[in-house]
Order: sequence, then structure tokens, then C-alpha cells
Amino acid sequence: MGSGVRIAELSRRSGVAVPTIKYYLREGMLPPGERTSPNQALYDETHVHRLRLVRALIDVGGLSVAAVRDVLATVDSSSEDMPTRDLDRLMGTVQKAVLSIPDPADEAVQAEAEREVVDLIAERDWICGADHPAVGALATVLVTAQALGHSRFLDAVRRYAEAMELVAVVDLDYVAQANTVDDMLESVVIGTVLGDSAMMALRRLAESNESGKRYGRRKPDSA
Amino acid sequence: MGSGVRIAELSRRSGVAVPTIKYYLREGMLPPGERTSPNQALYDETHVHRLRLVRALIDVGGLSVAAVRDVLATVDSSSEDMPTRDLDRLMGTVQKAVLSIPDPADEAVQAEAEREVVDLIAERDWICGADHPAVGALATVLVTAQALGHSRFLDAVRRYAEAMELVAVVDLDYVAQANTVDDMLESVVIGTVLGDSAMMALRRLAESNESGKRYGRRKPDSA
Repeated sequence: MGSGVRIAELSRRSGVAVPTIKYYLREGMLPPGERTSPNQALYDETHVHRLRLVRALIDVGGLSVAAVRDVLATVDSSSEDMPTRDLDRLMGTVQKAVLSIPDPADEAVQAEAEREVVDLIAERDWICGADHPAVGALATVLVTAQALGHSRFLDAVRRYAEAMELVAVVDLDYVAQANTVDDMLESVVIGTVLGDSAMMALRRLAESNESGKRYGRRKPDSA
Repeated sequence: MGSGVRIAELSRRSGVAVPTIKYYLREGMLPPGERTSPNQALYDETHVHRLRLVRALIDVGGLSVAAVRDVLATVDSSSEDMPTRDLDRLMGTVQKAVLSIPDPADEAVQAEAEREVVDLIAERDWICGADHPAVGALATVLVTAQALGHSRFLDAVRRYAEAMELVAVVDLDYVAQANTVDDMLESVVIGTVLGDSAMMALRRLAESNESGKRYGRRKPDSA
């Protein structure tokens, strides 16, 4: 693919159908190819890679097409605006784009739950603002658990927070290994989205282990 | 609602539209009401609660309607078959129903990644079988990262595993607090699905904290 290939070959290389590629081009999720005539353009390795990233976020990360479009718009504009490695600002921007925020509950109930989240942040001495979008997202989860009669879920969340401190150290180490701004941007996206999926799978395995140990399952049996 | 209410009142109480309730009834996600005439039935608090659970799994847990239907079918049949508290078997059954499994990659590549996951399980001395569905799910995430040039993601996953051991202890403690089989079943579902959502939100907050600390953001500023 040194000198560029047509859209049919790009489709073959990436495993993404031509109409889907055209849709991604229209939506700005894939940069245009190099135009060689009014209705023909050539694509290169960066296009193959971008298509793989899009499919990874949708198929493995479970993101909607709209969420992927927003994340990539953030990544592409940050890549231009952020020649310095402002990792802290970058993390925040990408995180917001990939956080799914459920519709909040009743306003007063939601506000009360948000205060509980802010208390939890203070207990752990974390430096995140009360206006971080994850505060509202977590509060909605708490309200939902409470409406189902699971107020004790808040205690579990408190204990999860400790485990997430370990995870966050891994995540920041991961991003810090990147060499260029583009690589760093992609590391945040991959680390965040694939990291969520990996963690959910690992949590199931760790639960199976813990359950097997507590309730006396024997070793290579599966749960 | 002591003596039961009609579907319109059930809709008002639960915030779920009547046609949606009828759809859940047809799909077996909501048990039928007590029939009082050929086209009328009465519903009680258990129906309100079940509707809240369904909406929680869809709106906050991000599950598809089909996934919710499968989970509830598992819960309902386990409730009949499992009068004893066979928590270990129950965890496994519900986990499988709520794990989203991406389509696996190329067979040989997938098999190689599954071996890496099995190695990781052995390293940590976890007692989960190689046929646990989360093995395949995690392998697919690894293959995806690799295809994007992020082979180093495997190291992050290894470190996540340690954090997930802590999480699994919290999860099993949570379920063990339940008093009845039905309560236990619901605790597994809520703990698993709302737990995933809570953990993702907490991970963002912990990352924001870690990023702020490393790169010198000042305190009540938000990231």
C-alpha cells in the first residue's frame, strides 16, 4: 500500500464494507483519501488503521457509532490543538466523550446521591471536581440501586473505589508510555474503551475464582 | 396497591409506558397479573419492582432488551430450580447471561490469545476453567488491541487482574448478604450490571485524580 489503494482494496484490507467506509467518510470519522480524479481517491495505511480503531470501539468496546464519531472528533481536534503533551487535559476530554451518562433520576434524589459521591471523593482525598461528568453518572447508578431496595450498594461502591485507584495507576502508566501526541491520544482511547471491556471480563473470572474458593468448587471445573 | 391495580396504574407507578409493559408481558420479562376478566388483570408491588429492575438493566446497565430477557429467564428458572443457596453455580449462570461476547477474531489468533488468558489465570492461581466465556471475551479484547499495534496492552491487563481480585471479594460479600434465594439472585444481577457501570464511572474519577496528581492540577478544578 505504499502509493495508496482504491476504496475496494481498502475494504478488503480492513474487512469493512465499501458502503460503510463511505458512511464513515461522510461522517468525518475517516479522513478523506488523496483525490486522483473527481470520483476516485487513494487510501493508505493510516486509513486501514483508523478503520480498525473504529471497528474496535464499536465491536469490542460496545460504543455507538455516534459515540465513536464524538471520540474521534475529540482526538482529531486535540491532535491539532495540543502539540504539547497536556495529558491531564487530554484524559479529561477523551473520558467525557466515552462516558455513557444515563438520564438522571428525580432532581432532588439525584442531587442527594451526587453529594454522596462527592463525599466519597473527599474520603479518598481524590482531586476531581464535583462537576466531573462521572459524578452524575455514578450518582444515577446509586439512585437506581436505591430504587430497587439496594441501598447497601453504596458500601460496595466505596470498596470498589480502592480497587479503581490501582487501575488508574495502570492507566496513567499505559498512556505515559506513548511516544507521540497521536499515539498518546490513541492510547487514551484504547486504554479507556478496551480497558473497560477487559476489566469486565476479568471481573467475571475473578468472581468465579472467589466464588469457587468460598464455596469449595474443585479446580479445573468451570463456573 | 394492596389488592392490585390495573395496567394503567402500573404504568403510572413504574414510569413505563403501557405498550412497553405489554411487550414485556408477551416476552415473559414480567410475570402475568392476576386475571379478573378475559381482558383485564391486576398487578401488584412485585410487578412495579420487576419493571424497575428491567429499566435499571437497560437504562443504567446498558443491556439490550434481549440480554435482559435472557438474564431474567435465568433468574426466574433458577429461583424454581435452586431452593438451596448454590451461590457458586448461580454466579456462573447469571454472569454468562450478562457478559457481552464480541465476535471472535481469526481462529488461530484467537486461540493464541486464549492461551495467554489461561496463562494469566494460572499465574494468579485462579480456579476458573479455560472454558469460562470470559476467557474468550478477554482474548478478543487482546486480539483487538494487538491489531491496533498495542501489544503492550497485555501488561496492563495483567495488572488489572490484581485490582479485580479486590473487586471480586466485594462482589461475593455483597451477594452473601442476601437473605432469600430471590434476593440473592437479584443481588447477583444488580451487583454485576450496576457494578460494571459504577466501576466505569469510578475508574474515570480515579484516573482524573491520578492524572491531576501526576501532572500537577490544583484541587477543586475539574478534569
